[in-house]
Amino acid sequence: GARIIILPRFVSCVNPESYPESTSVWPLPQIVILSSERYQLKPQSFSFGYRRYLDTKHSCSVLDAAFKRYFSILFPGYTYGNDTLQLSENEVFTLTISLDRHDCEGYPNQDSSERYKLNVFAGQASLNAETVWGSLRGLETFSQLVYQDDFGSYYINKTEIEDYPQFNYRGILLDTSRHYLPVQAILKTLDAMAYSKFNVFHWHLVDDPSFPYQSHKFPDLSNKGAFHPVTHIYTQSDVRRVISYARMRGIRVLPEFDSPGHTKSWGKGQSELLTPCYRGGTPSGTFGPVNPTLPSTYQFMASLLKEVASVFPDPYIHLGGDEVDFSCWRSNPYIRAFMHKMGFGLDFSKLEAFYIEKIVNITSVLRKTSIVWQDVFDYHERRKFLSVVEVWKQGCYLCEVRRVVKAGLRVILASPWYLDQPGPTHNWARYYNVWPLAFKGTEKQKSLVIGGEVCLWGEYIDATNLSPRLWPRASAAAERLWSNERQTSCVERAFPRLQEFRCKLLRRGIQAEPLYVGHCKHEYQSV
Amino acid sequence: GARIIILPRFVSCVNPESYPESTSVWPLPQIVILSSERYQLKPQSFSFGYRRYLDTKHSCSVLDAAFKRYFSILFPGYTYGNDTLQLSENEVFTLTISLDRHDCEGYPNQDSSERYKLNVFAGQASLNAETVWGSLRGLETFSQLVYQDDFGSYYINKTEIEDYPQFNYRGILLDTSRHYLPVQAILKTLDAMAYSKFNVFHWHLVDDPSFPYQSHKFPDLSNKGAFHPVTHIYTQSDVRRVISYARMRGIRVLPEFDSPGHTKSWGKGQSELLTPCYRGGTPSGTFGPVNPTLPSTYQFMASLLKEVASVFPDPYIHLGGDEVDFSCWRSNPYIRAFMHKMGFGLDFSKLEAFYIEKIVNITSVLRKTSIVWQDVFDYHERRKFLSVVEVWKQGCYLCEVRRVVKAGLRVILASPWYLDQPGPTHNWARYYNVWPLAFKGTEKQKSLVIGGEVCLWGEYIDATNLSPRLWPRASAAAERLWSNERQTSCVERAFPRLQEFRCKLLRRGIQAEPLYVGHCKHEYQSV
Repeated sequence: GARIIILPRFVSCVNPESYPESTSVWPLPQIVILSSERYQLKPQSFSFGYRRYLDTKHSCSVLDAAFKRYFSILFPGYTYGNDTLQLSENEVFTLTISLDRHDCEGYPNQDSSERYKLNVFAGQASLNAETVWGSLRGLETFSQLVYQDDFGSYYINKTEIEDYPQFNYRGILLDTSRHYLPVQAILKTLDAMAYSKFNVFHWHLVDDPSFPYQSHKFPDLSNKGAFHPVTHIYTQSDVRRVISYARMRGIRVLPEFDSPGHTKSWGKGQSELLTPCYRGGTPSGTFGPVNPTLPSTYQFMASLLKEVASVFPDPYIHLGGDEVDFSCWRSNPYIRAFMHKMGFGLDFSKLEAFYIEKIVNITSVLRKTSIVWQDVFDYHERRKFLSVVEVWKQGCYLCEVRRVVKAGLRVILASPWYLDQPGPTHNWARYYNVWPLAFKGTEKQKSLVIGGEVCLWGEYIDATNLSPRLWPRASAAAERLWSNERQTSCVERAFPRLQEFRCKLLRRGIQAEPLYVGHCKHEYQSV
Repeated sequence: GARIIILPRFVSCVNPESYPESTSVWPLPQIVILSSERYQLKPQSFSFGYRRYLDTKHSCSVLDAAFKRYFSILFPGYTYGNDTLQLSENEVFTLTISLDRHDCEGYPNQDSSERYKLNVFAGQASLNAETVWGSLRGLETFSQLVYQDDFGSYYINKTEIEDYPQFNYRGILLDTSRHYLPVQAILKTLDAMAYSKFNVFHWHLVDDPSFPYQSHKFPDLSNKGAFHPVTHIYTQSDVRRVISYARMRGIRVLPEFDSPGHTKSWGKGQSELLTPCYRGGTPSGTFGPVNPTLPSTYQFMASLLKEVASVFPDPYIHLGGDEVDFSCWRSNPYIRAFMHKMGFGLDFSKLEAFYIEKIVNITSVLRKTSIVWQDVFDYHERRKFLSVVEVWKQGCYLCEVRRVVKAGLRVILASPWYLDQPGPTHNWARYYNVWPLAFKGTEKQKSLVIGGEVCLWGEYIDATNLSPRLWPRASAAAERLWSNERQTSCVERAFPRLQEFRCKLLRRGIQAEPLYVGHCKHEYQSV
């Protein structure tokens, strides 16, 4: 096809000082009306409220927990409830939440509305949202509007905000196979994600180096495939904890079980799953991708995926499908015989397609929608069985995005947000200067771009450097995925806002690295 | 001059598996004789001992404190004294220290011997050193020889070690001007430095962005020049704490007060120190380097340096002298008039030399030896007044080293160890593959290379990312500066040793980033 012309996408930023004063909220809300009128807040006379069901026994645990979290964020050192005095109504500053659908029981999903309206006016605040997940986004915005003066008093200005995300899928990928990440490090990341309004934790659970997921059906997978069968695994209880912690913050957990490649660690606990490689007519003792020719493979995968589908509530599963090396398949006479029987000739991508289709079908039967890496889209002729494609390769990634949406499939864009690379050439501005819709296409095609994802692969990352590698650079991508493009097109304008947001992250205990020379009122205190 | 031919420096590493088994101690000791015979250690029956003065009231506080530290490192969770039972002598494993010079009162210096002999034999250990500083190096080595089996029992193998450093100056530079580093972050770095046998903390205290040193003679320097006059300063008590903490670990504190450039923050608290820049015949309101034409400048510098000389016990002071921008001097008519009067013509480097010579003379009167950045050496004709030159520029840095030693001056090499740059292209192997003496020169000239220094400039570094940026990559430089070149010339051989050392750093609470895919028995636990 013809090379796509990248449309001009950034409003000129020649005189950034001439822009109207904007809020420091990150990511920038869609509509903000600010006033210089301000109200003082006091920990002793601040409260959260929301309308409960008529049946008062039904409270909303998601909101109750959020009130506790945000109270301590608003007033560090204070605890909600303990530090609130009994006062008459007009002495209290109340943030009152109303929900169009008072449904606090489920999980956030791809179609959840995150829209909210926040109004701070006459010494009171009201927050309206369609869903509880939207109200969490509004609470985050509210918390960022509150500031302290030099004497330590808390204030919030009269403000009107109407807000919703540009893209519904705003993800962060963590890789727990190349290095094990303690559960605490994952939970801390979920905290920070909520501060930047990310809403999907893409958990790349397993890969070649280790298999830390403790399956109850196949315990040998982690017993033999994890770095250590006790200290370097995620138990069912760990997984439940991560899912619940994420849900409380309006974050989905998308599990990835990548196959048929990237499965070396699987083979340790599940014999006859991987393809034996041959050299000179005999097995060499090494193993390749999953063996797609054996019925036992599909029985195992169906059984494992059935467990995964029940453990992870999200209606989506990531099936991987990237970087399958054909050399081992090619070396194996049984695989070649199977290829011949199936009429695949010497085209191993047909064998891969055969495998992936079967796995996608298994997933469909489990009523889950599958996401695959772009390789699956690129190498397969029958694309109708696919749903969502994640674009990750470098080069003209928008060309690929365009190809996928032209085929009528949905896209998640990851290519420009591979954050493993650190350093001045890979700074936040690089991640800010991305616009996923800057390709020539119809409105309908563009609506198929459901969002983007920051990927933090684990070759050089573990709990020692995860936070400073991720924050605040991932927040640059977060604004791109949440905010209006035209209002957030100028790097110079974004810089002081991101600096201020980074100081807020420090204040909340997130080890976010500095953007450049300078300081925060409250520096990170190493322990 | 002719381009220097870099001599071949690395022993071929074609078949790294064929090397004899070596110890995991990092940096590698000069001579190690290992045995498979091993002795069990138990926290309850382990003790340190050393011969005291005949007058038993004189104990060695440096050693007493080191025993406590290393006991908790050897046996995590145990406390020396508390967890030691009263046992008869032959039930106890004792590490007995003897010092040739039992002098525990002073500070380590450039000429201090760090040589030690360690002998583990027949269920006992002896450590002999010329100085208390050497014994600290030996204690570190001892602590790295102890290991746990799968059941948690502690062991040490029969071992003979004779050890001394290749270079006497093994430094780390931290920059507390571009970002303020909380004292805790500095102390933690000193801990980690001792684990890699670094012995100089080069404290780049002040620079353009901020002046955090609280001078008692000139309190306005930090009152007006620090990022914040209370929370972002180092009080006299902070400085004493850093110096004392460093001394207990055998580490010198080398203060740098960089001038005449890099002094913007000085001007806020000391009027008429900096040069007013002119535009079109009138002062522009901006300021340049220190004004070298006024007597008041030298009165101020003499007074400040006198304070610095008394606060910092090390006989060396770093005077900076790098990157002086001449444009402001050139714009100022009074400076030009002074140049004319002095017969400097239009050569502003002569003015710079005039300034630096005066500052060096002030320092000499204070009985301190000055260190300067290579710029001072490069641009000045009269080099005899210089003592130690620190080479920092990129390019053929060994050419520069050679020029400096040919002029009879001593050299510290920093160029290859600028660790601000992170990432795969700037990995540990890059810092390991440096040999400071790989230039053509006489033995006498080579002996003038007194060591090297890892520089962690602060543009993109603060307490959030200091540790993972520094460790374990700085440890690669540490082995280059301590160990025998021929025994440590093979990156493949070093890799598993450095991986193991990095796990030890984690176990000791140092947030050292991973080298590559893998795991440690005890991962870093984020708090």
